[in-house]
Amino acid sequence: MQTSNKFSLAEAITLLTRTPATLNALLRGLPDVWVLNNEGKDTWSAFDIVGHLNSAERHDWMPRVQTIMEHGEARPFEPFDRLAQKKESEGKSLEQLLDDFARLRSESLAALQALNLQSADLARRGTHPALGAVTLSELLATWAVHDLTHLHQLSRVMAHQYRDAVGPWSAYLGVLKCSGHSAG
Amino acid sequence: MQTSNKFSLAEAITLLTRTPATLNALLRGLPDVWVLNNEGKDTWSAFDIVGHLNSAERHDWMPRVQTIMEHGEARPFEPFDRLAQKKESEGKSLEQLLDDFARLRSESLAALQALNLQSADLARRGTHPALGAVTLSELLATWAVHDLTHLHQLSRVMAHQYRDAVGPWSAYLGVLKCSGHSAG
Repeated sequence: MQTSNKFSLAEAITLLTRTPATLNALLRGLPDVWVLNNEGKDTWSAFDIVGHLNSAERHDWMPRVQTIMEHGEARPFEPFDRLAQKKESEGKSLEQLLDDFARLRSESLAALQALNLQSADLARRGTHPALGAVTLSELLATWAVHDLTHLHQLSRVMAHQYRDAVGPWSAYLGVLKCSGHSAG
Repeated sequence: MQTSNKFSLAEAITLLTRTPATLNALLRGLPDVWVLNNEGKDTWSAFDIVGHLNSAERHDWMPRVQTIMEHGEARPFEPFDRLAQKKESEGKSLEQLLDDFARLRSESLAALQALNLQSADLARRGTHPALGAVTLSELLATWAVHDLTHLHQLSRVMAHQYRDAVGPWSAYLGVLKCSGHSAG
């Protein structure tokens, strides 16, 4: 096989379902060096990233699905505040954020499955406040790739902590050459 | 906190210990679209990446630690064949490769802990066939970052399958802008 660009709701759901367990396995109980350090000024730590995933689960994915189903293109999505997690994570531990994420994701997916979407629904259109016309399938594919973009970021933020420690091997380690592509 | 570049054996082991469970949570039982597709000609799928981690576990990490402990700089490491997994993964399922990885990693870490390394040991030097003089701590930090570089690659290979499916959102998804930095 090479690559596939065809969206499948069932395949996307399989991926979305397991992200909480992936983050749990990777992060729960790790020493602070891996959890609280970032890539320097104004960048995100693993703690910040999990907080952001929680905010997206609360304010972004299913609310936008609902907007498309109820209002189509007539009502633009609410803009998503990428910094909302600063307030929402305040006073919480990483373990609490991981528990929140597992619960929120499970609620989102239950709500998604309750819609019993048919193939024709996937072509429904909505209005993104900056990108303009988008389809429901594009929104759902983006939800899955958004999980992956933050897993990508997590691996990079954690690897950054050993940027000097690896010595000359840095030449061989691709993750240390990743420029970050804005946040994700 | 910002960043930390200080190597700690205990912290590195905590990370190395959990990689098998992270890959299990992310990959076991996923549909083929996520497991067998790659980024195009001569690139690696998730299946190939797990196979490569197994080969590195067999031929690279602990064998090189042992070479440093027994021979210091006098004997260069065996070069590592990055394509060894083609033969070693043949006929296996992803699930078998994940089981192999959990067992191999657990054996490696038991062997590492049996060495009862002290801080003075971490400064011991060995000879890399291409990079020249390296230290034991650099080798151990590289082992941990090598896990992360392949998690980085996995997230990118999987996201690539939905490169078109996300429509205009591709502009916001950093993982889709990652050039790959050679393999990792």
